[in-house]
Amino acid sequence: MDVYDIIIIGAGSAGMSAAIYAKRFGMKTLVIGKVVGGLLNDSHNVENYPGFPSIPGFDLMMRFKEHVESLSIPIKEEWVETVTKNDDGTFSVKTEKERYTAKTILIATGTKHRHLGVPGEERLAGKGVSYCATCDAAFFKGKDVAIVGGGDSAAQAANLLAQHASHVYVIVRKDHMRAEPLNRERLEQNEKVDILYETKVVEVLGENSVEKIKLTKPFKGSDELAVQGFFVEIGADVQSELAKPLGVERNERGEIIIDAESRTNVEGVYAAGDVGNRKFKQAITGAAEGCIAAFSAYDYLQRKEHGREARFGY
Amino acid sequence: MDVYDIIIIGAGSAGMSAAIYAKRFGMKTLVIGKVVGGLLNDSHNVENYPGFPSIPGFDLMMRFKEHVESLSIPIKEEWVETVTKNDDGTFSVKTEKERYTAKTILIATGTKHRHLGVPGEERLAGKGVSYCATCDAAFFKGKDVAIVGGGDSAAQAANLLAQHASHVYVIVRKDHMRAEPLNRERLEQNEKVDILYETKVVEVLGENSVEKIKLTKPFKGSDELAVQGFFVEIGADVQSELAKPLGVERNERGEIIIDAESRTNVEGVYAAGDVGNRKFKQAITGAAEGCIAAFSAYDYLQRKEHGREARFGY
Repeated sequence: MDVYDIIIIGAGSAGMSAAIYAKRFGMKTLVIGKVVGGLLNDSHNVENYPGFPSIPGFDLMMRFKEHVESLSIPIKEEWVETVTKNDDGTFSVKTEKERYTAKTILIATGTKHRHLGVPGEERLAGKGVSYCATCDAAFFKGKDVAIVGGGDSAAQAANLLAQHASHVYVIVRKDHMRAEPLNRERLEQNEKVDILYETKVVEVLGENSVEKIKLTKPFKGSDELAVQGFFVEIGADVQSELAKPLGVERNERGEIIIDAESRTNVEGVYAAGDVGNRKFKQAITGAAEGCIAAFSAYDYLQRKEHGREARFGY
Repeated sequence: MDVYDIIIIGAGSAGMSAAIYAKRFGMKTLVIGKVVGGLLNDSHNVENYPGFPSIPGFDLMMRFKEHVESLSIPIKEEWVETVTKNDDGTFSVKTEKERYTAKTILIATGTKHRHLGVPGEERLAGKGVSYCATCDAAFFKGKDVAIVGGGDSAAQAANLLAQHASHVYVIVRKDHMRAEPLNRERLEQNEKVDILYETKVVEVLGENSVEKIKLTKPFKGSDELAVQGFFVEIGADVQSELAKPLGVERNERGEIIIDAESRTNVEGVYAAGDVGNRKFKQAITGAAEGCIAAFSAYDYLQRKEHGREARFGY
């Protein structure tokens, strides 16, 4: 059976960047990821990946994919179910289809969208309730929509929705938004947008599709808002469950704790991108962490197998 | 006088990435750098900046420049002579032309090419002696050249030179090259290339231009090699002199010591890219460090001026 030098779990910006570097280091490399491109695929427009002034998230990720494929690195579009450590120090990676073996593992599994958890939300999911404004905004042309969330993703999504919908209500739990100033300003200056601060959504109502949402605080005299679309942009949870059985340390948010070299506490196991515990998470920082992880894994194997430190540059 | 929120010194991949983020955070931003693009301009082909499978270094840096300019961020092509801290906590940045004031400073001044320091080298610089294969390789079509250096830059430069020159001698001090495996393999498999290990160059000879170089160890019976071009690729020294009077800590290589948030030991002063003390230095990692530095500077000013932590994402 093939033993890979590195198996990279996750095919977002961190995983694919790691693959590019690992392969260039001469490592036998495999990428396993069910969603090639990751959550960035859902990003309407990426304007802060240096080198691309403005590019749809999906297109940027296709550029990453082309880059990976130009190096003939295989990508398996499978779900990883478990990762276990073998007696000989290698790792077994089991997907729904197959079992793979590797000397090192990079966990770059990112995050998944968080749900609000209110009555009506699950029942009307896909019937007006959406977790991806980029994917669904265009379906709400000329309609009224609400979006819940106070972060930068919510601000971006609301700006996008305002290009299509008649009116956009932004429901923010706190008394301010934690968005990039540029995105927040665009939103505040848009006449089609109302921002409702210190307000929560307690229920999504509608027979066969979203008809209205119920608020904790009245807006213009009513605690119900008539909307046909309801977007949930309240964040994402890290997908770090695979790390647990390996003994990899995580913090209280479930993020994998990594050092400046993208190493976890377990030898041969690395993490990069949104699944890690960095404070500032962006496509560019995840990509860099992936490259650093590949270097660390290469350095680790060089020392282990050849007793030689890996060092590039000059 | 204008007070900038941040002055970024250096216009390479780290500095320009920082500028993109700083401006998007709403910061009043100025970039000062004599060489827009930095040393990456000299890179023949960049194949490891994720998203660009293969792009000349100069072209990649022009993409960065366009990105910066799309956000109307001013770039002053000036040399920074000194940075000093004022009594009110701001910083003064003095160039050969003007004096600027900022609340925070990012040092992203990178590196400069190292010289060998042997007789004949300075005298014949520009007359066959070169520090930039990318710039000068094409001038040596059909000629014999030597290149000194054992790192990845030397390997890349030698591969490039082999596309033009008749023959390429690579002079390596150690018994191996510390290059990316892919680059080293290309070199070893090239019939136009001889790699001379455990050999040093002690002199560059020639009347009006390079005629030969003198070695510490004979090759094919002679300690002199007849070449018309001599390329020095032995590394680069960090340009961190500006940091010293500010009390910024540096390591024994002169690299500025930064933490995971690109902060130095001095409040309001950040560093990113090749000038920093990261182990693994690449365009992608420098770009990420620049973005993180911009975030840290923004966070610092938010706390200082508004008593509020900056936090984005969800």
